[in-house]
Amino acid sequence: MKRGFAEEEYRARLVLAQARMDLAGLGALLLTTEPEIRYFTGFLTRFWESPSRPWFLVVPATGMPIAVIPSIGAALMAQTWVRDIRVWPAPDPEDDGITLLAATLREVGGPVGVPSGPESLLRMPLSAFAAVQAACALEFTHDYGIVAALRAVKSEGEVVKIAHACALAGRAFDRVPEIAREGRALSAVFRDFQRLLLEEGADLVAYIAGGAGQDGYGDVISPASDVPLVRGDILMLDTGAVWDGYFCDFDRNYAVGAVSGNAALAHAQLAEAVQAGLEAARPGARACDVYAAMAAVTGAGEGSGRLGHGLGMQLTEGLSLIPQDRTELRPGMVITLEPGVTAGPGTIMVGEEDIVIRDGGAQRLTRFAGPLLPVV
Amino acid sequence: MKRGFAEEEYRARLVLAQARMDLAGLGALLLTTEPEIRYFTGFLTRFWESPSRPWFLVVPATGMPIAVIPSIGAALMAQTWVRDIRVWPAPDPEDDGITLLAATLREVGGPVGVPSGPESLLRMPLSAFAAVQAACALEFTHDYGIVAALRAVKSEGEVVKIAHACALAGRAFDRVPEIAREGRALSAVFRDFQRLLLEEGADLVAYIAGGAGQDGYGDVISPASDVPLVRGDILMLDTGAVWDGYFCDFDRNYAVGAVSGNAALAHAQLAEAVQAGLEAARPGARACDVYAAMAAVTGAGEGSGRLGHGLGMQLTEGLSLIPQDRTELRPGMVITLEPGVTAGPGTIMVGEEDIVIRDGGAQRLTRFAGPLLPVV
Repeated sequence: MKRGFAEEEYRARLVLAQARMDLAGLGALLLTTEPEIRYFTGFLTRFWESPSRPWFLVVPATGMPIAVIPSIGAALMAQTWVRDIRVWPAPDPEDDGITLLAATLREVGGPVGVPSGPESLLRMPLSAFAAVQAACALEFTHDYGIVAALRAVKSEGEVVKIAHACALAGRAFDRVPEIAREGRALSAVFRDFQRLLLEEGADLVAYIAGGAGQDGYGDVISPASDVPLVRGDILMLDTGAVWDGYFCDFDRNYAVGAVSGNAALAHAQLAEAVQAGLEAARPGARACDVYAAMAAVTGAGEGSGRLGHGLGMQLTEGLSLIPQDRTELRPGMVITLEPGVTAGPGTIMVGEEDIVIRDGGAQRLTRFAGPLLPVV
Repeated sequence: MKRGFAEEEYRARLVLAQARMDLAGLGALLLTTEPEIRYFTGFLTRFWESPSRPWFLVVPATGMPIAVIPSIGAALMAQTWVRDIRVWPAPDPEDDGITLLAATLREVGGPVGVPSGPESLLRMPLSAFAAVQAACALEFTHDYGIVAALRAVKSEGEVVKIAHACALAGRAFDRVPEIAREGRALSAVFRDFQRLLLEEGADLVAYIAGGAGQDGYGDVISPASDVPLVRGDILMLDTGAVWDGYFCDFDRNYAVGAVSGNAALAHAQLAEAVQAGLEAARPGARACDVYAAMAAVTGAGEGSGRLGHGLGMQLTEGLSLIPQDRTELRPGMVITLEPGVTAGPGTIMVGEEDIVIRDGGAQRLTRFAGPLLPVV
């Protein structure tokens, strides 16, 4: 499978952004985070793991994006379609890109739109942001959700990468019987499952979660314990595996040794809820409609948490399947369906699948787990 | 090896923070990022990979920290030493924790110190931050570097965890001859190396980088290409493997098939520079002194980038080994020594080792690579 995108992909993103910037009266967008900068450039590196250096991309109202970045990234950025690359020797405790960024923004002109809405963050020190604002004397405002709205609708090229990540994770889930059985610690299963994902082609395993317990598990965000699996446990593994910068995000449940009636029923209910979500996820439907379709099956009330979310360059991004989210589904949106049910006293079971919205309805990106709980 | 820390560890961190807050006249610290919140609570989860929800910790001038977090994290936070846990059903597009956080801050009182210096970021939307400030009507200011200064000096318990991560990565590096040879693509080597790290006990492989080429490589942040290794290539692998929330960060170089004179000399020079750095890294010396000791060996001039950095809960944190950083080394600081040399025309080689500053001088946390370049 080919990595990267043709230059046309980035050009299309830029044109759409600039059309919306024009409507909003913005002179520039200032982007500071990994997915935002990658979205407009293709700049892909794990170096973001280091918090030491800020990175900036300035998207002007007309013309090409300008990268204002640490010199250590110049060679890699030069391999993207970006031609205007301005560097400084970071980290520089006296002036960590502030003067260079302010000069670039002055040249481009404001108002400067900075992503400020849900899920956004400014990846630079607050003191440096204040210094940049003071140095360039432009109006700073929000980006009016422009970047998030563009990212929410995936191109066909993006869907292909997400599907590729889903497929490789699907093969790793198929191999879970190789690594999970009575007596093995959950922490060992977590470690081995990451290995399986890599063997099946993941570039990296950005996220893994799960749980294990009799008739389900307590929560889905705890790290793995060293407690061995016992007969009757329900094991859940959830992963955000990444291929070429795009995530999958789905899970699978397994019964260890034997299936209890409670768990079997809960698992069948999850499959039913996912199916209801799939059928509800049509263009024109709203995020809250998909929530309602699944909640009708699981009996989830308000406050039971979200039952899915957008997916793409990040593990979770964009809309939430909750009662308050009225985002309209549009073809090209990729979302997860993630119902949860009470399985036993104090325990839950959670299912998760990935789909893409198409003109006629939703299409599966994962092979759905189905009602039958597999035994390992 | 035991995971987590005794409660005394967190109590000591809190007492030190509150002593410095008192000197700075702060009524509260507001923390929003994974390492900052984990530092004061022990809250460890990979769920931070999802950007959807903000998380807050309020450290008051006296008394215990207060967690203001999404309800999905309540059960896990309750396993830490934090007793005051306030939750809201996130994500909530209308009020994503703003009212709850503002009420908590009002109760605790200001001025509110927010990390704002080098490497810091505010992990919440700017619009939400503005809303919190408006709602609680307290003075917001920086944290005066209090959190970064505390984190820079590791406890013995922290050093043990970093050493454990270094040891397991060392075993993975020893096994690189199993996975790297002529004809194998660099991307396959990257994938397999992550598998080796997991097999040797890493909880996750947060970072991997490297390069390959005749007489060295062009940069150290590019993703792996699918180009096969050829005889005479220098292969470099660099990793930030994590154990119980603590990183190692070091690299190893290998010659594929045969060693050129250039590469052999460059590798020996790296070992010499690391040794010079180790000897210079004594309590009372400054970061710039360690830089100078290594630069004297490698001939690095100004602008050649940093030659090492702090290490701990993040891949890179705290001081930089650069001419401008006058941070004084103190016992308990963990740093990397990371010299680079020109190996051939347009190519570099980079070495990296991890050390901890002790009363008498620095102690190795990695088995140093030594002058001889291994052949695979």
